[in-house]
Amino acid sequence: MTNSIKKIKAGILGASGYTGAEAMRLLLRHPGVELCLLTADRKAGQSVDEVYPHLGGYGLPDMISVAEADWSALDVVFCGLPHGTTQEIIATLPASVKVIDLSADFRLRNPETYAQWYGHEHRAMELQSSAAYGLTEFNRDEVKNARLVACPGCYPTATLLALQPLVKAGLIDPKDLVIDAKSGVTGAGRGLRQNTLFSEAGEGLSPYSIAAHRHAPEIEQEIAKSAGVDADDIRVNFVPHLVPMSRGELVTCHVKLLGDATAEDLNAEFTKVFADEPFVRVLKEGAIAQTQMVRGSNLVVLSAFADRIPGRATVIAAIDNLVKGSSGQAIQNMNLMFGFDETLGLEQAPLFP
Amino acid sequence: MTNSIKKIKAGILGASGYTGAEAMRLLLRHPGVELCLLTADRKAGQSVDEVYPHLGGYGLPDMISVAEADWSALDVVFCGLPHGTTQEIIATLPASVKVIDLSADFRLRNPETYAQWYGHEHRAMELQSSAAYGLTEFNRDEVKNARLVACPGCYPTATLLALQPLVKAGLIDPKDLVIDAKSGVTGAGRGLRQNTLFSEAGEGLSPYSIAAHRHAPEIEQEIAKSAGVDADDIRVNFVPHLVPMSRGELVTCHVKLLGDATAEDLNAEFTKVFADEPFVRVLKEGAIAQTQMVRGSNLVVLSAFADRIPGRATVIAAIDNLVKGSSGQAIQNMNLMFGFDETLGLEQAPLFP
Amino acid sequence: MTNSIKKIKAGILGASGYTGAEAMRLLLRHPGVELCLLTADRKAGQSVDEVYPHLGGYGLPDMISVAEADWSALDVVFCGLPHGTTQEIIATLPASVKVIDLSADFRLRNPETYAQWYGHEHRAMELQSSAAYGLTEFNRDEVKNARLVACPGCYPTATLLALQPLVKAGLIDPKDLVIDAKSGVTGAGRGLRQNTLFSEAGEGLSPYSIAAHRHAPEIEQEIAKSAGVDADDIRVNFVPHLVPMSRGELVTCHVKLLGDATAEDLNAEFTKVFADEPFVRVLKEGAIAQTQMVRGSNLVVLSAFADRIPGRATVIAAIDNLVKGSSGQAIQNMNLMFGFDETLGLEQAPLFP
Amino acid sequence: MTNSIKKIKAGILGASGYTGAEAMRLLLRHPGVELCLLTADRKAGQSVDEVYPHLGGYGLPDMISVAEADWSALDVVFCGLPHGTTQEIIATLPASVKVIDLSADFRLRNPETYAQWYGHEHRAMELQSSAAYGLTEFNRDEVKNARLVACPGCYPTATLLALQPLVKAGLIDPKDLVIDAKSGVTGAGRGLRQNTLFSEAGEGLSPYSIAAHRHAPEIEQEIAKSAGVDADDIRVNFVPHLVPMSRGELVTCHVKLLGDATAEDLNAEFTKVFADEPFVRVLKEGAIAQTQMVRGSNLVVLSAFADRIPGRATVIAAIDNLVKGSSGQAIQNMNLMFGFDETLGLEQAPLFP
Repeated sequence: MTNSIKKIKAGILGASGYTGAEAMRLLLRHPGVELCLLTADRKAGQSVDEVYPHLGGYGLPDMISVAEADWSALDVVFCGLPHGTTQEIIATLPASVKVIDLSADFRLRNPETYAQWYGHEHRAMELQSSAAYGLTEFNRDEVKNARLVACPGCYPTATLLALQPLVKAGLIDPKDLVIDAKSGVTGAGRGLRQNTLFSEAGEGLSPYSIAAHRHAPEIEQEIAKSAGVDADDIRVNFVPHLVPMSRGELVTCHVKLLGDATAEDLNAEFTKVFADEPFVRVLKEGAIAQTQMVRGSNLVVLSAFADRIPGRATVIAAIDNLVKGSSGQAIQNMNLMFGFDETLGLEQAPLFP
Repeated sequence: MTNSIKKIKAGILGASGYTGAEAMRLLLRHPGVELCLLTADRKAGQSVDEVYPHLGGYGLPDMISVAEADWSALDVVFCGLPHGTTQEIIATLPASVKVIDLSADFRLRNPETYAQWYGHEHRAMELQSSAAYGLTEFNRDEVKNARLVACPGCYPTATLLALQPLVKAGLIDPKDLVIDAKSGVTGAGRGLRQNTLFSEAGEGLSPYSIAAHRHAPEIEQEIAKSAGVDADDIRVNFVPHLVPMSRGELVTCHVKLLGDATAEDLNAEFTKVFADEPFVRVLKEGAIAQTQMVRGSNLVVLSAFADRIPGRATVIAAIDNLVKGSSGQAIQNMNLMFGFDETLGLEQAPLFP
Repeated sequence: MTNSIKKIKAGILGASGYTGAEAMRLLLRHPGVELCLLTADRKAGQSVDEVYPHLGGYGLPDMISVAEADWSALDVVFCGLPHGTTQEIIATLPASVKVIDLSADFRLRNPETYAQWYGHEHRAMELQSSAAYGLTEFNRDEVKNARLVACPGCYPTATLLALQPLVKAGLIDPKDLVIDAKSGVTGAGRGLRQNTLFSEAGEGLSPYSIAAHRHAPEIEQEIAKSAGVDADDIRVNFVPHLVPMSRGELVTCHVKLLGDATAEDLNAEFTKVFADEPFVRVLKEGAIAQTQMVRGSNLVVLSAFADRIPGRATVIAAIDNLVKGSSGQAIQNMNLMFGFDETLGLEQAPLFP
Repeated sequence: MTNSIKKIKAGILGASGYTGAEAMRLLLRHPGVELCLLTADRKAGQSVDEVYPHLGGYGLPDMISVAEADWSALDVVFCGLPHGTTQEIIATLPASVKVIDLSADFRLRNPETYAQWYGHEHRAMELQSSAAYGLTEFNRDEVKNARLVACPGCYPTATLLALQPLVKAGLIDPKDLVIDAKSGVTGAGRGLRQNTLFSEAGEGLSPYSIAAHRHAPEIEQEIAKSAGVDADDIRVNFVPHLVPMSRGELVTCHVKLLGDATAEDLNAEFTKVFADEPFVRVLKEGAIAQTQMVRGSNLVVLSAFADRIPGRATVIAAIDNLVKGSSGQAIQNMNLMFGFDETLGLEQAPLFP
């Protein structure tokens, strides 16, 4: 279809997890990428068909262990490894390989904050300082020129796309942010846990990690940047909930307006800031963002509303946690890093119903 | 099983709706109640088996129209009629029949507030002034002596059980309440609506009625009462969400602590206030309320947590919207009104998984 | 509530599994039973609240290991242990303790069939021969007098209630039975398995164990008994499917009519055979059995239909796999064994929606 | 992306239904099609954004009524209208417009059978005789040259792909076919019906239209064709079930093997017949078809297994009812009719989880 594009060679580390599977699904349709390498230590030797039956039949390579990998032929790797293991593996990769990391290892710039939230000193601190924070819409220049991109967490992606422009424009108070977040169960990964069994997560709603979720310091770091203050000066209320659906993430942000700002001003700011963004959809006045609007796509949908309490507003953002919240945004970053059209491989319209 | 109890005769108006069905389910096991009359205007002439196959085989009477009803033999009616129609029908009932209303018609005490939110003047205002607000735990005396009890909405039930004691104790600021609410789809009733089709509501999360839900003024009215201020002085942020599950409701309340109050103080207050309540369960420090803990039961589960923002806290309450949020609480009120043990017919343990 | 009943003392082995939880839920409301002992080897030392939060607050004893158990005070134990481990533990129990086994260990009377399907010789063969097969409706006398009752598997329960009376009456051919079975995910238990994660089992339908499910020989054994032939002479087609719901089981049986029998004859036979059964509901001509009619209850719902192929019919049965398919039927058997009313503790109407 | 392709102009009649929405979703990514016209009588005047929020933002035309449509500029229309209304509208279209019908109006070739199952005489019988039956894999020549293509029903699509080749090869008995079918709720359409509400269809399994589903005669017609007998000589057992998932359809076919045929022979026949088919995936021995393997894609997945009853086998097929079972196959047919590559616009890999 697009023979003129020279293909780059890509690998996925941790291909047996959901972010790995989603990267495979999307890259299979990317005309500029050849998927050459898939690692999955515990599934090494298995075919894609065995690990992800829905992706059998596309001729993808078998899973191998990281130790078996030959990096020399690769242009880029996507790392979907568990937090903490990524940094050591990435440190061993040849400099010629660009790295797009989906783990949390390179998101926090302050080593002390990292150590506090992840329970150990960072083990590749020099890399950390060179990593670009891959929230594409706000960091294009850094991403374009980076060798290592740290893709944001799913919650920070939705939250920051909604709040950062408003903080930057001085429309809302960065010190009074209540982020009530909801995620589908894929957000918890493919690991075996009792609370993500169908019989436990189905037909029920569970808040979790109240005031203790690792995405909170990540949100604070970026909000602080937009507010022009130190990260320690920002504390957000962040309460996530597990929702009985597979995909989809929605953040309901309860915010305090500054000065005379109104909800209309928030929507106007969205319209202005995101006018040319291919993946950001600002809804018309009154329409409400839902996860049904984004399933399977790289879109974020935004809407803002006046609150009943004068001087306050509600800002809502919805994404597919596995696409814009993870592998889709990673590919968006890859497109930037390799000079492809930013939307390549990501043009699918949302799947509904 | 309990032959010694003299049975009262009960009817259900609007028995074809979900609250009607739930009242039937629970009353079938109530040793002190005989279900004598079921109305459902559009299903008049149909058997319970046709309208609710799961309740066939229990010998319940057929559905009839309101016009056909003989009220004289009844001790009590449960009204599960649509808002607005209830008041006119109730006004025609003989005074000997006690009325437990599940609609919104008698919840708001201020006629102007009612007219503003429901779009028409109240049509039975004299009844309204005599109605007891049936949030059982806080209004036992009124309920016991009332002829007409207005059962609270499902969201107010969960919200007020969580917040009213804390406001009353001066632990949280009644003017800074952010109530992020989530409900299963039964909360929208059995009426045919596109957004509650399985294919539309499934696998997705939708906020709705932002800052415009009729349960907001009801919450404000009762919070104001606890705070000792006028209802117009209280405005709450209330944002409900439709969650892909049938039953269950959870409110995540983001609150501002007063004085030196801490989250521990909130839990301590819960423990004190609800010590003898059969249907209120205060969780141990750190345990998180989930809807999975209450399905099919009349329980409310409560827990409070410190926020990352100093001086703020998160309070969570979970109920089954069809039981404690509706028909279960109605029966709890009936038990009080007729001198039964308050838990009669409501002893079922939650259904999980 | 029913003080006149002398309480028996019961224990649950394997209380951390779903059948254990369901036995707890139901026994909590049984006026003749005191739950004295709960074992769960891997959760020994934990409270019920920690293992099953929805059952916290009822004063149940903590989980202990089997080794710690004092059997002497018990009248009855329910065994919800994994297949294979049950037989050894049961063999060590004092003879004074009646045993109601929910595992598959004592269902197959032929030791060779057992060995073939379970991969090892039976380790308590003498007990096996004394076990009553606890499909209550068809084996009341054996159950009443048994010390050990082997409760049927969930699929056999639904299938046999539908097919055994028809085979016995000579209305259908026992050698041409196609059983297309569907189960909710709780049927797979609480163990951690990838295919029962919400994200894997949700929004999808999966056949499994085609022609290789252990419930097939159990069905064949009982069908053969009704047909008066050797178990080896009966082979059934049995294909189970995993359905994205927590509870509920439905078998669609495609059968061949014998002689001039019609679908009406099947329904008439049901009506005759089950006339006095408290837990069997034969639907009216044309009504179709659904799992929605039985959730949370001990009911089985039956219906039969003419097929488009002349001389064939479709028979459908629906149960809640955790109640009539497991713990509910176990309690029904207990009621018989101890002289209680057979419905005690099992009177709950189905939960819908 | 593919400027070299000359675009054809397409319209969708009945664009507000699920098949219409799915056609839009897929055609938005088809490089050879421009979507010029969308009709939806009851939603005439509304934007796509209002009718299907997930498809807002793609610049699609607003909905109009059929009466307002200008057909002259169109090359092709997809008809997603209700059964019965299609035939009259199609009869009025200019001959230059090719028609791909998703309704049942032109599927049955025998006018008496049509009248019997649809309750009225066919109203465009001359068109009916010219319609090609659009099960693409088996009717490429007819489809290529047709002006009017009648796309098969979703159940017939899955069933016939599984059974027609086996009947044709003489491996299975066409007179002993038991088709136990299961569908997600989108199969019931977007119309408002009580049994497809989330609260009714969720957490439950319901058989329906037993021996009375309109897809049965359609299956019989095509099976008869493969068997070389008259349609009246074939009667199949066909029992559909409503499954609590949005998309996905699976047929479990219980069949009688002819001669010495084995399940391996069935798989071998599949492998041979479908060797070059881009959308048919025959699984490896032992792997089981699931709907999770096809969601959102145009694939059908097939697998066959030996039965416990000697001489019988089980054949399973899974599709996405809205794609291969409806709009995807329609586009596959359009590709053939207009000389496009057959896979154009249909290359998406399945969405899982």
